[in-house]
Amino acid sequence: MIRASIVGGSGYTGGELLRLLLFHPDVEVGQVTSERLAGKFVQNAHPNLRRVSSLKFCSIGDLEPCDALFSCLPHGEGLSQIDLFQGVTERLVDLSSDYRLRRTDDYPRWYGHSHPRPELLDEFVYGIPELHREKIRRARWVAAAGCNATATLLALAPLYRAGIAKQAIVEVKAGSSEGGNRVSEATHHPERSGAVRSYRPTRHRHVAEIMQELGTSDVHFSATSIEMVRGILATCHVFLSQPMDEKALWRLYREHYRDEPFVRIVKERSGIYRYPEPKILAGSNYCDIGFERDPDSNRVVVLSAIDNLMKGAAGQALQCFNIMFGLDETTGLEFPGLHPV
Amino acid sequence: MIRASIVGGSGYTGGELLRLLLFHPDVEVGQVTSERLAGKFVQNAHPNLRRVSSLKFCSIGDLEPCDALFSCLPHGEGLSQIDLFQGVTERLVDLSSDYRLRRTDDYPRWYGHSHPRPELLDEFVYGIPELHREKIRRARWVAAAGCNATATLLALAPLYRAGIAKQAIVEVKAGSSEGGNRVSEATHHPERSGAVRSYRPTRHRHVAEIMQELGTSDVHFSATSIEMVRGILATCHVFLSQPMDEKALWRLYREHYRDEPFVRIVKERSGIYRYPEPKILAGSNYCDIGFERDPDSNRVVVLSAIDNLMKGAAGQALQCFNIMFGLDETTGLEFPGLHPV
Amino acid sequence: MIRASIVGGSGYTGGELLRLLLFHPDVEVGQVTSERLAGKFVQNAHPNLRRVSSLKFCSIGDLEPCDALFSCLPHGEGLSQIDLFQGVTERLVDLSSDYRLRRTDDYPRWYGHSHPRPELLDEFVYGIPELHREKIRRARWVAAAGCNATATLLALAPLYRAGIAKQAIVEVKAGSSEGGNRVSEATHHPERSGAVRSYRPTRHRHVAEIMQELGTSDVHFSATSIEMVRGILATCHVFLSQPMDEKALWRLYREHYRDEPFVRIVKERSGIYRYPEPKILAGSNYCDIGFERDPDSNRVVVLSAIDNLMKGAAGQALQCFNIMFGLDETTGLEFPGLHPV
Amino acid sequence: MIRASIVGGSGYTGGELLRLLLFHPDVEVGQVTSERLAGKFVQNAHPNLRRVSSLKFCSIGDLEPCDALFSCLPHGEGLSQIDLFQGVTERLVDLSSDYRLRRTDDYPRWYGHSHPRPELLDEFVYGIPELHREKIRRARWVAAAGCNATATLLALAPLYRAGIAKQAIVEVKAGSSEGGNRVSEATHHPERSGAVRSYRPTRHRHVAEIMQELGTSDVHFSATSIEMVRGILATCHVFLSQPMDEKALWRLYREHYRDEPFVRIVKERSGIYRYPEPKILAGSNYCDIGFERDPDSNRVVVLSAIDNLMKGAAGQALQCFNIMFGLDETTGLEFPGLHPV
Repeated sequence: MIRASIVGGSGYTGGELLRLLLFHPDVEVGQVTSERLAGKFVQNAHPNLRRVSSLKFCSIGDLEPCDALFSCLPHGEGLSQIDLFQGVTERLVDLSSDYRLRRTDDYPRWYGHSHPRPELLDEFVYGIPELHREKIRRARWVAAAGCNATATLLALAPLYRAGIAKQAIVEVKAGSSEGGNRVSEATHHPERSGAVRSYRPTRHRHVAEIMQELGTSDVHFSATSIEMVRGILATCHVFLSQPMDEKALWRLYREHYRDEPFVRIVKERSGIYRYPEPKILAGSNYCDIGFERDPDSNRVVVLSAIDNLMKGAAGQALQCFNIMFGLDETTGLEFPGLHPV
Repeated sequence: MIRASIVGGSGYTGGELLRLLLFHPDVEVGQVTSERLAGKFVQNAHPNLRRVSSLKFCSIGDLEPCDALFSCLPHGEGLSQIDLFQGVTERLVDLSSDYRLRRTDDYPRWYGHSHPRPELLDEFVYGIPELHREKIRRARWVAAAGCNATATLLALAPLYRAGIAKQAIVEVKAGSSEGGNRVSEATHHPERSGAVRSYRPTRHRHVAEIMQELGTSDVHFSATSIEMVRGILATCHVFLSQPMDEKALWRLYREHYRDEPFVRIVKERSGIYRYPEPKILAGSNYCDIGFERDPDSNRVVVLSAIDNLMKGAAGQALQCFNIMFGLDETTGLEFPGLHPV
Repeated sequence: MIRASIVGGSGYTGGELLRLLLFHPDVEVGQVTSERLAGKFVQNAHPNLRRVSSLKFCSIGDLEPCDALFSCLPHGEGLSQIDLFQGVTERLVDLSSDYRLRRTDDYPRWYGHSHPRPELLDEFVYGIPELHREKIRRARWVAAAGCNATATLLALAPLYRAGIAKQAIVEVKAGSSEGGNRVSEATHHPERSGAVRSYRPTRHRHVAEIMQELGTSDVHFSATSIEMVRGILATCHVFLSQPMDEKALWRLYREHYRDEPFVRIVKERSGIYRYPEPKILAGSNYCDIGFERDPDSNRVVVLSAIDNLMKGAAGQALQCFNIMFGLDETTGLEFPGLHPV
Repeated sequence: MIRASIVGGSGYTGGELLRLLLFHPDVEVGQVTSERLAGKFVQNAHPNLRRVSSLKFCSIGDLEPCDALFSCLPHGEGLSQIDLFQGVTERLVDLSSDYRLRRTDDYPRWYGHSHPRPELLDEFVYGIPELHREKIRRARWVAAAGCNATATLLALAPLYRAGIAKQAIVEVKAGSSEGGNRVSEATHHPERSGAVRSYRPTRHRHVAEIMQELGTSDVHFSATSIEMVRGILATCHVFLSQPMDEKALWRLYREHYRDEPFVRIVKERSGIYRYPEPKILAGSNYCDIGFERDPDSNRVVVLSAIDNLMKGAAGQALQCFNIMFGLDETTGLEFPGLHPV
């Protein structure tokens, strides 16, 4: 059994990860930390784990050695704990944005502060298995990718890797769980319910990851918060540098993702689920990808749907973990999602 | 023109009342107070009033004389301001629960504290026009009824006044705006969205008003918060002391409410709107009432739907105001609601 | 491996059952029938099973022998197929309402027609394991209980079995999946979204099951459709024949459900999930039960939450199946639900 | 009083228009036609008009002369009735897409059939007052614009008229009422609720109107159906041909819309309503427009929100009518929308 612990386990990604680990056949959950809830049962924060687990939260100061550590601390808060993490574990998956960008310049530009430990940036592998599986297999430290970045990158990578994408405009529709469990006027139900709120028309931080991984700066991004708790749909308008017919696009995407256990090409002639739909992905680790050519221009619209807490966070982190430990990549991630829901 | 001011105008009922007053042909809005937002434009709290009004909030200390004052302060906060109110206005409509109960004993029992100004309780008229129109016409002070109490009382009054109701079990389904605009974990969107939350299975405070007005203590009440921002549906199971056929029930309700401008008997053979439905009442002052006899027992299910911010708060307050000032009762309250919505 | 087939597998309960069976370690899915979709892949009806299963629907006429058969045909449609079912299987779990009532008189009374095969009624065991586990263990045929009846019966059984309940008024809040996948004006999104629709204020058919199992006719029931796809909350107002304090109630419920793998007593002092909440049960087979005494009367409000497609249909059917085949009752039913969602 | 009638009045836009006309001080509602509901009260289709109107639907064959006729027939169905319309009225506002495009070639290209009465196309004025007010004032026939086109055009017109827009990618988020009241599997609540459905990634028909009015073909459009009944948010990514600073953009939009009664520039530093939000526009005729410059490129994101049934259909049609009859343009359109809702 692999002993795995979670730092910052009272939030939404921590709870989701705990749920997954509790049912993982090769994992024994070590500790789950929360300063706010130390000493309380995990079901206080995660009511779905009632009776499923009798674990209690502990303080980060009480962390014991483990085989793998997942950090679900809020962005920025894990930076000062990195030495502590090194002291207790060999393998770390960090779900925050603290180590995703490789270039030190990118931190002041996108996060407004310089990175306190720039020497560590090269140690982390950017955690999207479909892009960096071999590096993750050999990694000690993984920086799990951002949720919007994951949806966008899986949609765009085939076109950019083939060198045929010229420009992309990405419009993400996202749910309220993306913002975590801190209350605010913005998330007060009478205000947030039914909202179609432009969250970041420009300069969303996930753009930095997207540009880094695609190797281009001609990607434009906006995010809109809609009535939904879990889920992301990325609608990516890509302008190609050369005409490409339907068949060639099919071939390109199929070749890229044929062997991927969690990427499904969704492209049907008819039916209400003929395009990727986040609604039916809640709880699943799939990334569904579809596309449609505009016959009147060189635009292709690529659609990508995920559950932001699964393939966009905890699920992807566990997928990385499975790879790092040589396990079947899908272990503990088989739940296919519900319909209807 | 009647000069009307609002105390505590930054919350949801205050905003709704302001919206109504701004379009009322006989009213000139005097002042709107908010300690938190004093000096700011009202659209800061009420984005739907953008360009509609260029009023600014002022402090309660700057209140000037007016013909009518509406108090939308949170429950309890207006108690200490009552002398100030008396100093600036002749006519007051208080939308809080501070003066609804006539018996001094009821305050410690239901609110946990004794009333600081018991001598004033007799001065206030309980503000449901359909029950106390003549008293309201002559009143200087009106205590507008609670939202759940309004829906329940309008449903039950005909049966209780006719002396044929023995017992009632009332189950209210309510939206999130009922709780006001204070943020909390309970109203955080990922938690509140899609919730079916038992809010008060027993001992809801509005029961006190209901018992007082019906003159019985054999009324049992629970409230459930559901996915909805505005709206209340009260499902009232009434056990009759004597058998009563459909026709007699019809006659009873029709006689009671025939001349009421804001009560509609909704009872159709078919169609998806054959029972009262709060969904189509948002923004309207109607209380829709329907009923269905159980052929197998002496139970009648009476259904009652309102918009909690309108007939359950601001709309009803304005209706009382119209009566107090001898205006047509429906002035400024004509909006019929939207469909679909 | 137990070979199990599904008749009427294109609907919501059929799809949910298929999802469960595909991940059940002791089951091999035989056939799934649908006359409308015969020859098509199951993902046409159940998009969440994309890539999970490559099964195709077949016609009921092509049914082959199997170890267990689940019938998910709409109410009434399976009556004429019962001989065919007998020909292919030893063990049948029928999810329709066709064989739930034991008394032949009840069919004309509640369903408007006499039962065509009254001699079979005694052969069926009413399928709620918490009430009839031993009979189910020995049963060849099980009639899985109705969803609203399941939530209500699990809430009320302890009080009725103890002989201390005098009268119950049950108010069920239900989601739209309860109505199945047939489209109608009533389920058209602009009309159904945000609705608080009195579905059956009186004479709901599930009352017949409830009365039969509780052995009383003094149970009163209404159902309200709310904004939700999956889920039921039953709010049960029970009047006791004798006073009973909190502790005694606790003891009663704990004794009843202590060993039940799928019943959780939910009763906490604080927190937003201190009462049963269907929102966090989607996909899980739990029935969460809580209660609150009214200190001012002999009323107890018992709350009960389930996922109507799981503990209210497919999950419960599989639980019965596990018992019939001597398997661990929780096999294939471990999914704990998501939070937030 | 102006006598106005509605053809095809049982649908959502017809009902919305009827609601507006019933409260319009200068209008007397003549007839409302519906073949399906002829002889029935209008409240059968429009439950919000209960008691508000005692009109009955009549057949189109019974249409009598009127001062103004609104056609709310489904797209294509009014084409054969145009001579009948001419026989009964001087002034027609057609809310369908039948006469919006001026070039005869555009019909086969976008609608798949040639126009049966091409000689009439020049007679119709495209009905967006902010773009064609003077023509509408003199018009006998107006073709009210499409809802998505209205939101998009009001967002983009200032930039295109100033000649500084090079390319635009428009992503519209839309509610379910846009599809009208015909039921289908796509609108079945369990499927449509919570959906994030790519409706038309490419080749949406409203693109034809947008291209026509902007005089460019470099506009790219996709629409996504989200959980919402009413409302549109258009997120328009515009690439400018020259750099433009914030102030210049402000000046441009302010100059364009300063005197427009129904266009509000929404652009605040903070607050959850600092960008246009359709949620608070239900029932109002406003189009709220905001924008944000990307400091890293020549992209401007222009945001535009409307109620699709108001400014996107019935409200805009009435606004056109007010202009055609020399009335104050805002008459009957003063409702500001609700908050919260």
